[in-house]
Amino acid sequence: MENIRIGMVGYKFMGKAHSHAYRDLPLFFPNTVHPEMKVICGRDPEGVATAAKQFGWEEYTTDWKILLDRDDIDLIDINAPSDVHKEITIAAAQAGKHVFCEKPLALTLEDSREMLQVVEAAGVKHMVGFNYRFAPAVMLAKKLIDEGNLGEIYHFRAHFLQDWLVDPNFPLAWRLQKDVAGSGSHGDLGAHLIDLAHYLIGDMTEVIGMSETFIKERPIPTQMTGLSAKGSDSGEKGEVTVDDATLFLTRFANGALGSFEATRFAAGHRCTNSFEINGSKGSVVFDFERMNELQVYFVDDRDDVQGFRRVLATDPSHAFAEAWWPPGHTIGYEHTFIHEVVELMESFREDRQPVPNFRDGVKCQEVLAAVDLSIEKRQWIRISDV
Amino acid sequence: MENIRIGMVGYKFMGKAHSHAYRDLPLFFPNTVHPEMKVICGRDPEGVATAAKQFGWEEYTTDWKILLDRDDIDLIDINAPSDVHKEITIAAAQAGKHVFCEKPLALTLEDSREMLQVVEAAGVKHMVGFNYRFAPAVMLAKKLIDEGNLGEIYHFRAHFLQDWLVDPNFPLAWRLQKDVAGSGSHGDLGAHLIDLAHYLIGDMTEVIGMSETFIKERPIPTQMTGLSAKGSDSGEKGEVTVDDATLFLTRFANGALGSFEATRFAAGHRCTNSFEINGSKGSVVFDFERMNELQVYFVDDRDDVQGFRRVLATDPSHAFAEAWWPPGHTIGYEHTFIHEVVELMESFREDRQPVPNFRDGVKCQEVLAAVDLSIEKRQWIRISDV
Amino acid sequence: MENIRIGMVGYKFMGKAHSHAYRDLPLFFPNTVHPEMKVICGRDPEGVATAAKQFGWEEYTTDWKILLDRDDIDLIDINAPSDVHKEITIAAAQAGKHVFCEKPLALTLEDSREMLQVVEAAGVKHMVGFNYRFAPAVMLAKKLIDEGNLGEIYHFRAHFLQDWLVDPNFPLAWRLQKDVAGSGSHGDLGAHLIDLAHYLIGDMTEVIGMSETFIKERPIPTQMTGLSAKGSDSGEKGEVTVDDATLFLTRFANGALGSFEATRFAAGHRCTNSFEINGSKGSVVFDFERMNELQVYFVDDRDDVQGFRRVLATDPSHAFAEAWWPPGHTIGYEHTFIHEVVELMESFREDRQPVPNFRDGVKCQEVLAAVDLSIEKRQWIRISDV
Amino acid sequence: MENIRIGMVGYKFMGKAHSHAYRDLPLFFPNTVHPEMKVICGRDPEGVATAAKQFGWEEYTTDWKILLDRDDIDLIDINAPSDVHKEITIAAAQAGKHVFCEKPLALTLEDSREMLQVVEAAGVKHMVGFNYRFAPAVMLAKKLIDEGNLGEIYHFRAHFLQDWLVDPNFPLAWRLQKDVAGSGSHGDLGAHLIDLAHYLIGDMTEVIGMSETFIKERPIPTQMTGLSAKGSDSGEKGEVTVDDATLFLTRFANGALGSFEATRFAAGHRCTNSFEINGSKGSVVFDFERMNELQVYFVDDRDDVQGFRRVLATDPSHAFAEAWWPPGHTIGYEHTFIHEVVELMESFREDRQPVPNFRDGVKCQEVLAAVDLSIEKRQWIRISDV
Repeated sequence: MENIRIGMVGYKFMGKAHSHAYRDLPLFFPNTVHPEMKVICGRDPEGVATAAKQFGWEEYTTDWKILLDRDDIDLIDINAPSDVHKEITIAAAQAGKHVFCEKPLALTLEDSREMLQVVEAAGVKHMVGFNYRFAPAVMLAKKLIDEGNLGEIYHFRAHFLQDWLVDPNFPLAWRLQKDVAGSGSHGDLGAHLIDLAHYLIGDMTEVIGMSETFIKERPIPTQMTGLSAKGSDSGEKGEVTVDDATLFLTRFANGALGSFEATRFAAGHRCTNSFEINGSKGSVVFDFERMNELQVYFVDDRDDVQGFRRVLATDPSHAFAEAWWPPGHTIGYEHTFIHEVVELMESFREDRQPVPNFRDGVKCQEVLAAVDLSIEKRQWIRISDV
Repeated sequence: MENIRIGMVGYKFMGKAHSHAYRDLPLFFPNTVHPEMKVICGRDPEGVATAAKQFGWEEYTTDWKILLDRDDIDLIDINAPSDVHKEITIAAAQAGKHVFCEKPLALTLEDSREMLQVVEAAGVKHMVGFNYRFAPAVMLAKKLIDEGNLGEIYHFRAHFLQDWLVDPNFPLAWRLQKDVAGSGSHGDLGAHLIDLAHYLIGDMTEVIGMSETFIKERPIPTQMTGLSAKGSDSGEKGEVTVDDATLFLTRFANGALGSFEATRFAAGHRCTNSFEINGSKGSVVFDFERMNELQVYFVDDRDDVQGFRRVLATDPSHAFAEAWWPPGHTIGYEHTFIHEVVELMESFREDRQPVPNFRDGVKCQEVLAAVDLSIEKRQWIRISDV
Repeated sequence: MENIRIGMVGYKFMGKAHSHAYRDLPLFFPNTVHPEMKVICGRDPEGVATAAKQFGWEEYTTDWKILLDRDDIDLIDINAPSDVHKEITIAAAQAGKHVFCEKPLALTLEDSREMLQVVEAAGVKHMVGFNYRFAPAVMLAKKLIDEGNLGEIYHFRAHFLQDWLVDPNFPLAWRLQKDVAGSGSHGDLGAHLIDLAHYLIGDMTEVIGMSETFIKERPIPTQMTGLSAKGSDSGEKGEVTVDDATLFLTRFANGALGSFEATRFAAGHRCTNSFEINGSKGSVVFDFERMNELQVYFVDDRDDVQGFRRVLATDPSHAFAEAWWPPGHTIGYEHTFIHEVVELMESFREDRQPVPNFRDGVKCQEVLAAVDLSIEKRQWIRISDV
Repeated sequence: MENIRIGMVGYKFMGKAHSHAYRDLPLFFPNTVHPEMKVICGRDPEGVATAAKQFGWEEYTTDWKILLDRDDIDLIDINAPSDVHKEITIAAAQAGKHVFCEKPLALTLEDSREMLQVVEAAGVKHMVGFNYRFAPAVMLAKKLIDEGNLGEIYHFRAHFLQDWLVDPNFPLAWRLQKDVAGSGSHGDLGAHLIDLAHYLIGDMTEVIGMSETFIKERPIPTQMTGLSAKGSDSGEKGEVTVDDATLFLTRFANGALGSFEATRFAAGHRCTNSFEINGSKGSVVFDFERMNELQVYFVDDRDDVQGFRRVLATDPSHAFAEAWWPPGHTIGYEHTFIHEVVELMESFREDRQPVPNFRDGVKCQEVLAAVDLSIEKRQWIRISDV
């Protein structure tokens, strides 16, 4: 089995998370395919040089196109801002490179569909970065559903709550600009919830949504990096062009009812990516702020001891857990990326598409777009109509 | 200050809760107006006779109209099924009796409006039984909002989750029949959430909803009382004519976004009447299963010790708490009714309308009706249009 | 079956709790023996007159000895300060009255033993007020242990944490004076833990303890009632003669290890009466601040869904729960007293001693005394040696 | 600033944790001294060869003495079983190597004292592996205490609960053999609690303990590695020579009372390393199973909103947090080791002893020994007397 040689584009938040995942993988998962950290690419020469050294890449470059010409690069890992995902993906696939692209795939549904078409036509492997699927507690929920332990599913209730925009003086970072970010809480946070819903419950048939931008103008940032940004001294303000919060209702193909909320205005919630599922035989509750735990309830438990169990998904029976530490020794956010990269490497070992891949990315974009349309038209939109 | 002499109609679940409240009131709130438990009324002579003795009523009757002719009855407390609220209310008000009516006021918005008109025309006091307002932890949320401690409100997120219908063999009790109950989870559970939203956040402007009846047919019950019912031996089934679950989105007049869900199909949730409010200065979270607690978060807390506080609303600074036990000694469900009755008695002492009254009841019915209409029409409905 | 006619001594905190229990009992437990609230007794004529009216007693008196001469009094319920328990109990029993005495039975082990001897010689019923046994969640723990669901018991870990003395200006109330209260946190709070340990685990064989009075002097109170007291204007201070906190370790006869802590100096804990039990087959955790819940863990649960279950002890399968409200509708502190009085009334119906009775009271005093002796002698003390 | 070149002894559980820490350090803490992973040493040639490759060491050896002769090794990191800590430490220090030794330092207090003497005489840096100090939530507790935010400390209450020995067929692993492990739950788990107590509260003056071995005999293992072991097919059993559980009480020099419990028999607790501290101004609670959280209570919070705050120690204001991910994105067990190694590297950069060092290791052994003596003698033991 040969190594997979990686070329990465982008070295900020996601670039660091992916780099670390590649670096940690051999230590904890020595039996999968080995990722070779060949070249990292970024626009700022100094920044990318530092990152290359710090993260452990062999080389760096400021021109991502160079990666495509090199024979010693097998896979392009795209962590650049969302507005360049499409161009890089298409060029990479057409150059015969496998593609691992951060979510959201693209700024529009149309773009994402084109990307899918291209990667499939090129016959390369493609993966999309929905890392939350890879929390062992989430995988336990999936297993319980697949094994029928929750029975028929009635409800999926999810919210992704953050609070970093509650401060009206937080500056107008790129994530608040529609032309770069595509959308706000909806595409950033809601996209994760939608993917989890697809993973756990299945397809949706129709949606209706509502959104709001609570703070319409913010200070122009003087400096910006990753998630952080510093405000303008001049007091100059610019328009926020994305949503601060988006909610929607949905029906799933299997008859379940869904409720979704994504917001950056929920004071006290740093990163509450949370869902609850209620079925005819049981329920589960997940909250990313306590990502090692899954609350599990079974209808058939003995009458006098029914109750939600706080399961710590760190036992040998839980996905990925044996690779880490003894039971009760928890893992963190970054581990979702390591598991994600394990799946990517395994897809090479087993010669199959990784999951989630661009099909999942497009499905997510379809729902995002349908919700946007439902907000614009103020009516229910069928997913099959977008 | 004279005693208020009560005539009660209905002696099952709510009848018992109200009776107990009147009975306990003088012990814990000796300084308010005293309720005299005069007559209780029910259809089954044996049943009501037993209830009268057990609950401590002086007399009983099987004909509620008798109550209206008696000079020694000041107030009619209506705990009968929802389909007779209107008739009794109107007759009582026209006989000059004050009215305390359980929620929902009526089976339809029109009926509730007529009831309001009649009680106002009659000049009597009128109260509606939204007891959850009277949990001290809920009142603390109200106080924090009123004092501006949560700032501008962005989000109200509420669900009332129960699970007593998850069993498909649970029989077709009266609460599952539209002609008696008016609606299912929506009117029973959702109504409480809507009232809490009105109390805490204010008016809504528009709604859009979705509902489902997951189990369409259930065994015809052979026996039925209060909340419980026993299934048919014959295996005969009848149609469920109310909703098992109803969800809706809303916009509030103050700009906040609301999300509501009421269901009887949430396995593991016996009585999760829960809401969260996010504002520009803080957040609160309430869950009735831990009704003595309010989670409270303040944006302005010192940087390194920000977090949701678990406040036990049993301190002298909390509403009603000093009437009970020392700090940390909790109260239960029934206490919400005692506090409710304190408000009713205080309204006599202070010669004003109690709160919540029929105006609140009608406002709740308006939202219920608007949601129903939005489901039927599959579109947003403005509250002002119903 | 005849009514039991009650004469009560003391009308403050416990007097109110017991009065309310008698008053509520017929409403929720109509099928047990009926307690008649005949006479209440207190030293202050005005205070006791008000209490009698408020609580619903037929008569009042300022001389408890009068109760003993009356033929229409069957049982004396003693809620007076601990230093008069013995005198009243002995006089009552010798007058042929049944006795229900609040804990602790007496100021010393010797006194409690004499009290037990007298009530047994007199052949009357005797009960001691360990009300926490009667929380349904605690009774669920007992049931699980008795049925073998927790297996062999290894650990009992309990603490009763309060914080009302953290303020150094809290005045020198009677509970801080050894001659009236007997002891501080140890006898007040620790006694409850010890009784729960006896109830749930069984006899102890030996103990070693440690105690401290953190604030040695406090303002002399000018006024005092129940639990509250107001400080001196003069700034005069007096010595605190009881313990602020007492901890001890113990071995149980069944081989389990025990750890106990009682303190009034645990900031943030209003009333954390909490225990955890670990056995070979499972564990349970109880915290009185969430008194409707029991956390339950089973070793034999399926590998991937092991975890503490949050059981809400409000289902029909739980002790006393069906007398109250539907599942998920919680009860409060006062309900422990109502259940306690149900047990007392049932003991008349079944003509047996109630449980817990003075034998349990004496067993508790033995451990309290052994711990005190272990502190004085700075060595392990066998319970059989006190 | 030069790199520090590491030679490691032992490659199992702790060896892996330390290796990963060195490997991750440059990525997240690029500005401290760089650790070079030179040589790893283990007894089994095949095992250590695999580990070297997997963990990223340049070389491996089966003879740790070789490390001492090499000029290109600056520091020996000792993760071998406890019974060889002393020999390796002394040889390393005498060869002029810095020493980082896992806890417990040695099997006896005497040995640990000798080790301290030698490293101090040799003038090398010495560190001991109390990694739990380095959880950001624990460091927040330390900061609050140091800044006086908790006031005068009254109580320290700690337990380390695990459940991997509840199964009586778990084999007689090396951790259950006194000659290799030194002690059982006491030295393994209790040692961590003692160190946290020293770190957070300060010195203890006297202790009294109690311990038990619940399962006296276990199957002889046929295979053993790290924490896991497989039972004997022959059914042969051997004696457990260490404690399954040890509890003790203590007094701190500052007047606080302490309660400690370490056990491997607490069903449902995989790794509950937990403490609570109560002071005159506030309290904190930590539980390692939710290691990113610290519960914090302040006496001076406004009357109506007092309550324990759930602080997620992932904000920029928290120790080490900015090196990781945005607020709300949690870290795991392994990060405590990375932070520990940061401290070790910083001690080189700042040319000082790292903390905790062998002085802390000896202090921990003193308490361990005092507790053992108190159990043997069945009496209080002053720390200054061991």
